Amino acid sequence: MNKTLIINVFDELKDLLGDRVTQDETLCREHGAGYSYHACMPPDLVLYPSCTEEVSAVVAICARHQVPIVPFGAGTSVEGHVLALKGGVCIDLRQMHQVVALSYEDMYITVQAGVSRNQLDQLLEGSGFFFPIGPGVNATLGGMASTRASGTNAVRYGTMKDNVLALTVVLPDGQTIRTGSKARKSSAGYDLTRLLVGAEGTLGIITELTLRLHPYPAAIRAAVCSFPTVEAAVKTAITTIQKGVPIAKVELLDAVMMRAVNLYSSLSYEEKPTLFLEFHGTEGEVSEQVQKVQQYAEQHGVTGFVWAEDEPTRTRLWRARTDAAPAAMALVPGSELMGTDVCVPISRLAECIVDTQADAEATGVLAPIVGHVGDGNFHLTMLIHPDDPEGFEKAKALNERLVLRALAMEGTCSGEHGIGIGKLPYMPLEHKEALKVMLAIKKAIDPDNRMNPGKLLPDMG
Amino acid sequence: MNKTLIINVFDELKDLLGDRVTQDETLCREHGAGYSYHACMPPDLVLYPSCTEEVSAVVAICARHQVPIVPFGAGTSVEGHVLALKGGVCIDLRQMHQVVALSYEDMYITVQAGVSRNQLDQLLEGSGFFFPIGPGVNATLGGMASTRASGTNAVRYGTMKDNVLALTVVLPDGQTIRTGSKARKSSAGYDLTRLLVGAEGTLGIITELTLRLHPYPAAIRAAVCSFPTVEAAVKTAITTIQKGVPIAKVELLDAVMMRAVNLYSSLSYEEKPTLFLEFHGTEGEVSEQVQKVQQYAEQHGVTGFVWAEDEPTRTRLWRARTDAAPAAMALVPGSELMGTDVCVPISRLAECIVDTQADAEATGVLAPIVGHVGDGNFHLTMLIHPDDPEGFEKAKALNERLVLRALAMEGTCSGEHGIGIGKLPYMPLEHKEALKVMLAIKKAIDPDNRMNPGKLLPDMG
Repeated sequence: MNKTLIINVFDELKDLLGDRVTQDETLCREHGAGYSYHACMPPDLVLYPSCTEEVSAVVAICARHQVPIVPFGAGTSVEGHVLALKGGVCIDLRQMHQVVALSYEDMYITVQAGVSRNQLDQLLEGSGFFFPIGPGVNATLGGMASTRASGTNAVRYGTMKDNVLALTVVLPDGQTIRTGSKARKSSAGYDLTRLLVGAEGTLGIITELTLRLHPYPAAIRAAVCSFPTVEAAVKTAITTIQKGVPIAKVELLDAVMMRAVNLYSSLSYEEKPTLFLEFHGTEGEVSEQVQKVQQYAEQHGVTGFVWAEDEPTRTRLWRARTDAAPAAMALVPGSELMGTDVCVPISRLAECIVDTQADAEATGVLAPIVGHVGDGNFHLTMLIHPDDPEGFEKAKALNERLVLRALAMEGTCSGEHGIGIGKLPYMPLEHKEALKVMLAIKKAIDPDNRMNPGKLLPDMG
Repeated sequence: MNKTLIINVFDELKDLLGDRVTQDETLCREHGAGYSYHACMPPDLVLYPSCTEEVSAVVAICARHQVPIVPFGAGTSVEGHVLALKGGVCIDLRQMHQVVALSYEDMYITVQAGVSRNQLDQLLEGSGFFFPIGPGVNATLGGMASTRASGTNAVRYGTMKDNVLALTVVLPDGQTIRTGSKARKSSAGYDLTRLLVGAEGTLGIITELTLRLHPYPAAIRAAVCSFPTVEAAVKTAITTIQKGVPIAKVELLDAVMMRAVNLYSSLSYEEKPTLFLEFHGTEGEVSEQVQKVQQYAEQHGVTGFVWAEDEPTRTRLWRARTDAAPAAMALVPGSELMGTDVCVPISRLAECIVDTQADAEATGVLAPIVGHVGDGNFHLTMLIHPDDPEGFEKAKALNERLVLRALAMEGTCSGEHGIGIGKLPYMPLEHKEALKVMLAIKKAIDPDNRMNPGKLLPDMG
């Protein structure tokens, strides 16, 4: 961005935010990459507003000077959502971490967008309620909404799109709108809430969210079970869903990932395709669910069950799953993780995973798999050494073939990570003519293309 | 519409559709009102295409001649959605009643938009799967998607927005797009599916829908229970939801509605606020749910339970609920029903219903109430004699006060009927600045305002 312009904007923003605006190079660089494999593109300025009104004022100033804006939550995006492709300002929302409203009777909480997942969990602890959506990292709720995140509980509780009741959003001109209401459903007009969930900050900045709370289950039981093949594990998951068992989590780790997990955490699970399961409900419901799933697993040749009922045992058991990313990285010392995800109809899932494993092996990229298999969603965690540019190119090509495989199976190029810049090339392939409608919406709401420009949609030029 | 223009368009459409285009006055009038209290506004032509390609060709012809288009499902809308305010063509989709694809393994069915709810139920009978969304009438799936319909099962299974995976849509210029995919979730781009669900045909015409199927429950039990007050009934419902009991239906009928039901069907229920309940699950789950809800009901002074386990008894029991509309109409012989609905946070529901009952009584309008109380949604069914213009004005004013009451309680002007023209005056009140975003989207996708013009959004002039 033009230096004079920066200085002018910086001065105006300083009047508004004082020392909560910075040009510090280190901070700018920290805000320009996220967890992605894409090269850092730092913004010119980083801001830390503390309320919707300040975001609105900041955005109005940027509008007047035609400055691009990148909203920033916890920077945990893996697809390059926070890269400042055109420079400009990065709005870091982490100082917006207040609870705005809370009603257990109506089962909602309204939080500022910078509240993190872990903070929300702590806020709700002991209340008898919880918020079920959890990606594998400590993202902010604003970021989770913006990428339509989901995670392990989605099979029972849905994704962010199903658990956001209402939003406060600052539009590209600085105006603030509210979408949705406190009612649990509505037929009053276009569903702007669902349009903005998953819009990756390209239409406006989410500053507050009203989230649906769910009653904390009276009983929780977890299990780990190993299968001779990926097909057997996936078939067990499919049968569970088809029979209407309201399972809370059904996660697949492939044999390579189980090896990583065993090594990393000194465990001794069988190094075979493995399902990690969790059941929520009353004692009676959980027992019934467990009995059924055990039966389906046996029908598909399960070779071992490990159960966990009490919380410490359950936490230990799930540790293997939650540590999957660092465990994978420990397989190749010094490596970086290039994570990707796709989602396919569950009938095609086993085939998609098996073909991808074969592809990874043929390519020579070590790429363990974890999957939210109840939804047909899985992650390929490709391990690349930073000094291996050839390996990096191989991984990129493997990722591309995975996406094309998923699309050929009538799936989607991303189940929960979002598009950012990493999946951008596949948007025309997946959406075809519908992409024009997305571009028309973008142009109508952000005609100057200043809101997280270059993300989610091909550049409008 | 201009006569010469009509003749030209008619000729072009006749070449395409043969005798599936008509100017017949009776048919045009039949298509210009729906179930609403609004005066009929007939279209100039009615068309009966049989596939997406024909709809696309029709829409392209209308685009060339700048002819307004009203899509028509079963005509069961109560808010004037099908009135041809600017004349033009009505596209009746009922000849589009084919199944396009069906996968029990992936738990979806793709149907043409003219498939009706009852037809879908029949198609799925005996399959072990069902589609849970059911408004009180035999609407088409396209119409249900367009108004974001829900009905009695929404408390457990969600609304149309939660049960549509993908859509085929013909845009205002005749181009066809697909939104969504066969995957159960996606983070790939703007959620056009959710934007078009509830758009009331103002952005394009839904021609095909991929719907999520749900496993048919192994056990179903139903119950009817009476309470001393509306508060007691609503508190029972709230406790049920808060405690996480996955109840399938929890319907409130107020004392006036119970009187109507008793008279109409020669029943002898207590004429008090009454909950109609339905439980889905395994035998064990249902028993547990029933036991709990019985306990909550007792805590709130329930005065009587009637149970139904087998299908015929259950059907008979629910008949009272499904016959609520004709039963209400029978209270005032020769009357017409002016139905309206709002949705509020459940903590405000009892207050909203009680205030509305008092308002109706003070106004002198007989207006029984039924409510999907688990969602905070209820219907006021105002009974107006066609020869009583004063009563009609009173009912309209009562409706307006109801909407304002719901909005003051942070609710919405429509929980499931949609906006059409009936709720149009309340859109600025409910959405305030967000309405501009809706208008910008409308203008971007339908710049000539030809798709169901005058519905959902204030006219763009």
